[in-house]
Amino acid sequence: MAKLNWGMVGGGEGSQIGPAHRLGAGLDGEFAFVAGALDHRPEQGRDYGQRLGLDADRAYGSWQDMLAGEKDRPDRVDLVTVATPNATHFEITRAFLENGFHVLCEKPMTMTVAEGEELVHLANHTGRICAVNYGYSGYSLVRHMRAMVARGDIGKVRVVVAEFAHGHHADATDADNPRVRWRYDPAQAGVSAQFADCGIHAMHMASFVTGQEVERLSADIVSGIPVRTLEDDAMVNFRMDGGAVGRLWTSSIAIGRQHGLAIQVFGETGGLRWSQEQPNQLYYMPLGQRLQVIERGEGNLSPEADRTSRVTVGHAEGMPLAFGNIYADLAEAIRARKDGRTMDPAANLYPRAEDGLRSMAAVFAVAESGKADGVWVDARPPMFR
Amino acid sequence: MAKLNWGMVGGGEGSQIGPAHRLGAGLDGEFAFVAGALDHRPEQGRDYGQRLGLDADRAYGSWQDMLAGEKDRPDRVDLVTVATPNATHFEITRAFLENGFHVLCEKPMTMTVAEGEELVHLANHTGRICAVNYGYSGYSLVRHMRAMVARGDIGKVRVVVAEFAHGHHADATDADNPRVRWRYDPAQAGVSAQFADCGIHAMHMASFVTGQEVERLSADIVSGIPVRTLEDDAMVNFRMDGGAVGRLWTSSIAIGRQHGLAIQVFGETGGLRWSQEQPNQLYYMPLGQRLQVIERGEGNLSPEADRTSRVTVGHAEGMPLAFGNIYADLAEAIRARKDGRTMDPAANLYPRAEDGLRSMAAVFAVAESGKADGVWVDARPPMFR
Amino acid sequence: MAKLNWGMVGGGEGSQIGPAHRLGAGLDGEFAFVAGALDHRPEQGRDYGQRLGLDADRAYGSWQDMLAGEKDRPDRVDLVTVATPNATHFEITRAFLENGFHVLCEKPMTMTVAEGEELVHLANHTGRICAVNYGYSGYSLVRHMRAMVARGDIGKVRVVVAEFAHGHHADATDADNPRVRWRYDPAQAGVSAQFADCGIHAMHMASFVTGQEVERLSADIVSGIPVRTLEDDAMVNFRMDGGAVGRLWTSSIAIGRQHGLAIQVFGETGGLRWSQEQPNQLYYMPLGQRLQVIERGEGNLSPEADRTSRVTVGHAEGMPLAFGNIYADLAEAIRARKDGRTMDPAANLYPRAEDGLRSMAAVFAVAESGKADGVWVDARPPMFR
Amino acid sequence: MAKLNWGMVGGGEGSQIGPAHRLGAGLDGEFAFVAGALDHRPEQGRDYGQRLGLDADRAYGSWQDMLAGEKDRPDRVDLVTVATPNATHFEITRAFLENGFHVLCEKPMTMTVAEGEELVHLANHTGRICAVNYGYSGYSLVRHMRAMVARGDIGKVRVVVAEFAHGHHADATDADNPRVRWRYDPAQAGVSAQFADCGIHAMHMASFVTGQEVERLSADIVSGIPVRTLEDDAMVNFRMDGGAVGRLWTSSIAIGRQHGLAIQVFGETGGLRWSQEQPNQLYYMPLGQRLQVIERGEGNLSPEADRTSRVTVGHAEGMPLAFGNIYADLAEAIRARKDGRTMDPAANLYPRAEDGLRSMAAVFAVAESGKADGVWVDARPPMFR
Repeated sequence: MAKLNWGMVGGGEGSQIGPAHRLGAGLDGEFAFVAGALDHRPEQGRDYGQRLGLDADRAYGSWQDMLAGEKDRPDRVDLVTVATPNATHFEITRAFLENGFHVLCEKPMTMTVAEGEELVHLANHTGRICAVNYGYSGYSLVRHMRAMVARGDIGKVRVVVAEFAHGHHADATDADNPRVRWRYDPAQAGVSAQFADCGIHAMHMASFVTGQEVERLSADIVSGIPVRTLEDDAMVNFRMDGGAVGRLWTSSIAIGRQHGLAIQVFGETGGLRWSQEQPNQLYYMPLGQRLQVIERGEGNLSPEADRTSRVTVGHAEGMPLAFGNIYADLAEAIRARKDGRTMDPAANLYPRAEDGLRSMAAVFAVAESGKADGVWVDARPPMFR
Repeated sequence: MAKLNWGMVGGGEGSQIGPAHRLGAGLDGEFAFVAGALDHRPEQGRDYGQRLGLDADRAYGSWQDMLAGEKDRPDRVDLVTVATPNATHFEITRAFLENGFHVLCEKPMTMTVAEGEELVHLANHTGRICAVNYGYSGYSLVRHMRAMVARGDIGKVRVVVAEFAHGHHADATDADNPRVRWRYDPAQAGVSAQFADCGIHAMHMASFVTGQEVERLSADIVSGIPVRTLEDDAMVNFRMDGGAVGRLWTSSIAIGRQHGLAIQVFGETGGLRWSQEQPNQLYYMPLGQRLQVIERGEGNLSPEADRTSRVTVGHAEGMPLAFGNIYADLAEAIRARKDGRTMDPAANLYPRAEDGLRSMAAVFAVAESGKADGVWVDARPPMFR
Repeated sequence: MAKLNWGMVGGGEGSQIGPAHRLGAGLDGEFAFVAGALDHRPEQGRDYGQRLGLDADRAYGSWQDMLAGEKDRPDRVDLVTVATPNATHFEITRAFLENGFHVLCEKPMTMTVAEGEELVHLANHTGRICAVNYGYSGYSLVRHMRAMVARGDIGKVRVVVAEFAHGHHADATDADNPRVRWRYDPAQAGVSAQFADCGIHAMHMASFVTGQEVERLSADIVSGIPVRTLEDDAMVNFRMDGGAVGRLWTSSIAIGRQHGLAIQVFGETGGLRWSQEQPNQLYYMPLGQRLQVIERGEGNLSPEADRTSRVTVGHAEGMPLAFGNIYADLAEAIRARKDGRTMDPAANLYPRAEDGLRSMAAVFAVAESGKADGVWVDARPPMFR
Repeated sequence: MAKLNWGMVGGGEGSQIGPAHRLGAGLDGEFAFVAGALDHRPEQGRDYGQRLGLDADRAYGSWQDMLAGEKDRPDRVDLVTVATPNATHFEITRAFLENGFHVLCEKPMTMTVAEGEELVHLANHTGRICAVNYGYSGYSLVRHMRAMVARGDIGKVRVVVAEFAHGHHADATDADNPRVRWRYDPAQAGVSAQFADCGIHAMHMASFVTGQEVERLSADIVSGIPVRTLEDDAMVNFRMDGGAVGRLWTSSIAIGRQHGLAIQVFGETGGLRWSQEQPNQLYYMPLGQRLQVIERGEGNLSPEADRTSRVTVGHAEGMPLAFGNIYADLAEAIRARKDGRTMDPAANLYPRAEDGLRSMAAVFAVAESGKADGVWVDARPPMFR
């Protein structure tokens, strides 16, 4: 089976996200990396692309060149990943969608809700895939949680408790460091810092696992390091359209925490608990029974779990494979379109423009509520109200 | 050294809290159990008391009889523990204080803020000890956390995250069970259920560890089981008088959680994490260093930790010893008064009437805010505003 | 119900084990501490005893005085705990047994196998209780493991894996410290150091949980700190009389381990895992199912577990309560004898002279095998061959 | 930089190890999968190869065809992975080495010690790489343990404790299942089952981490399921050439364990602990200090750790990346040879023919000792005595 052609905008030399995407896209051998505009500095981008194995004529100096160069090729890229600075995501994604490319955009998909709505319309109109990289939703046991909730294993969800806490921005003496400072500067980061950066992953996961969308929320935001304009710690309460109540805490000043993305889901007849730092175990208690440990890769899980589990039970899998699972979803989605068939429903789980839009609406809602003493606000984008 | 005389009101046959108090009071051999009015049914109380070894004339049929019988004895009880139904705590505690007894009252100390203020005034006026049993504050490593914060090991506290989650009231088909139902019935339980029952322990611990008091709060309360009038799940954000921000989640419908009282404290130069279910380890990260594991009983901890650690490092200690540490504090407090000396400051940590009062004010604040969409309210009792 | 009278030999001021016994014996209010010969220095012993509340005439200067003073009293002690230096256990225990006292002897019960056999005979002959303090067998979930194995929950036991590892003697620069050195000196410690001190607890637990006795063993012993004559690290393979295979590792040079007493039991239809450092959870996997977490105090466990669980589920219990459970067994055993009734079988689990004897035989077997390159040797005392 | 050409023998449709190798080899984009003889059934192998993207002329029907087809091509494969049934490893590996190919052979490298010695000689003689896939040694924190030991962080190693326990062959009713039975049948599996299959990974890791080789050993082997000829549970004590003492337990009947490969290393001045199931944390205690948690990906670890850590700290990495690190080592080794330069010493850690040979000698030694009541035997291959 011929590989799909894949290209990338951004992710140049020294970036962290670039290698992660190349690793994820390459994991199953589904995608061949054939084109890229990897750097906003044309010369560096062309040079680095060739060092990564791109042909000289497909190692582009800018995304505009890449779009021009690819759009009429018969072997043009099947999927473009956009991993540029946040403020450029919208423009680039829009341009490639308009020209009929499938796109996987890094989060945040846009900087405003209006832009998000435009991309949703555009994706619907063009029929192209506009995926957004909430990569943690690719973990096998996260998929299994979603399947368990969907098939009723824990009954109607009452409460979902999510968190994403780390301590990597806790040093006040380092707050002026440019690598950190921009994240808390509205001019560069927009209306929210820690919630937009990390908390939104936890909120997406809450939606992903429960199959419910956030309707309204109340936020308490603080800057633990006072010089910061934007928040480094936030608590968000929310209500979902299926009746679930949500609690979400996120922090970047939680010294001692590394990358604490975790979720607990409590339903009428069971509870679930999972943590990104130990992703190969899922804790499940059916009402009135004992806590039991579900292992990634054990037999007779859901199709969603089986599809995304790659090594035998007891072996650790990690984040790069979760990432790879998003790409595997996209490969299946693209191939199904090419083949004119329905895609495997167990793969039809990649986050998409609607998720990117809802996330952007939630970010603005958190900022609005946070500034207004936690007043409850509508968290839905206008088009979904 | 002669034992102190100890008596108990409540804690009759079949109660859970009675044996826990007798175990805690007896732990160090400081207190001799010599008097009791253990049951509201006089005959049963007298009978059970004698079976527990009380002399016939000090196995009383009512707390009023006990008060009358003890108050003029030369060997009268040095300390009275009140472990009766919640609604009677105030009246009994007040009566014993007024007659010059030291009292350890189970939580909640009162049912209203006004009653709480009255007991604070009474304790101040009489000079008697009015302690309140927030027993988890007796754990050795909780004491050590407090000492670490007080001596500056983590710098100024920015955020404290506390929780107390269990799933023991999650079964909707059991919600009508009288043993459960009363807790969610305002007529019997007052203005709050899960926050007043469990959440308040987490809030007291936040104050105890940080050395700060809660000033104002915003609460999001829900009844996950809809027939309940009072909340079974609550999220409370708060602000403390030393500048700390608090987040507190409590739930009784968190299936899979047993007794999840846990606290995380994040300061300018370090973070701490502790959980009641594994109380012999305290996780500490100094800013810029690695997470380290502090073991209960290790050398060179604080005087507060050393005093409350009873077996060598590596051996588990549990809740009954935490409870015993509260009694050990009280024994020291009473002996110091008898001896006319200053008490050991490392023992001067038992919760007292002010804590009971503040807790009651917080309970009412949570109920008020919770009914008003999370509006921020003053959480302080009037006398401390 | 009148308290039982309890006395103690050894456990003087500054000892660690003395307070632990007083705490354990006092836990349930079953025993009144009424007599003691607490120190080999008569004056100090008498003084300390009185400070602990003993009457002057029962604060003895020597165990001989105590024996003489107690044996003809109508209110003589019902139980004597012997917590003196190891080499004196035999003589003192024998003397009290011969005079009709029940005895709880600290481990090791004797220094030779022959002495152990003598005490077994003496206990049988006199009909007195001769208990030995393998206190870890008092943990509620250890009792429950035993009950599960006995009732067939995991089928026939195939393999039991036990360990007891700590690192408290790992510092070579401290090896000459008298507090440490004597343990590795045959003149003071006998034929074995770390196995006799710690490993034997793990071996007793293996027997206790499986209900099988060790028949033969092979040992690999080493002195990780070369100046030591006796071992500080040992691996013992053994075979039990019910067919189980055992593996047991013990070490005092395992830096990073605190008090790692742990056991795993693997049967034909299930496996169990428990650790002393987190004693309130027992991990159980029935064949072909998932790992499940048994919580101390949960409903519907065994009578053996229920009897020894003292606080509600989710609250930590620790070692002092395990210790107290041994005393609770003894209180029941003594009362049943007084009352002429059969004792509660769920309490009939305290370790006894036979266990002390078997342990001594195992210690000698380990020393013998260890010196002979791990040759398999009979681990049974002659009287049980 | 042009990709290296990579080919595979074995790993056909339905195999577990085939995808793992393709994932590992493809991880960094260093190797292009260009040739394969994937199945012993020629037609299936050619078909599957082409479906995986191989050109028709390089999708071979047998390893002999592949050798013949590749050996004279200018673009012949740079590395051949041998992932066929165990008994064929030696012959295939020898043939490719003799023809000047670099080889990565699955474990066990051979079925006899003599064959192992032959491959060591052959690799030395030809100057070709003969690597063996002890893939767990690729984990970043395993590499870091090795670096810490090598640079003296824990002093001279005293004791290393390794284990590899699972329960996947514990069902006696399934023992006749052909997928399981062959493993315990000497005619198919050789002289050892569980030790050769799993235990040897733990032993290799002990050598890898300590930098010492096993000299002699004593084994206690049992068949917990009696119909088995070969062992399903084994305990091995060993001595290493740098003075370390080893204890190693392995089991396939440990119900409740999944894939319990774990190692503890205790030196004169520190201890280390790591487990494959939670591979992103390494527990380290410097003598006299506290246990600390080293996180994969944290700053300022060793070059060996940095090189093999691919995502930022706090994100889980798992076994496929460990596997990929072996391939990354090999890519660096091959490129260095092509470029005529010294390879990065931090990459020069892939297991090699000497390791495969030593492992085979250890397997035979375990079988020999195990049959002779645990007599100590030389575990070294003759050429290293």
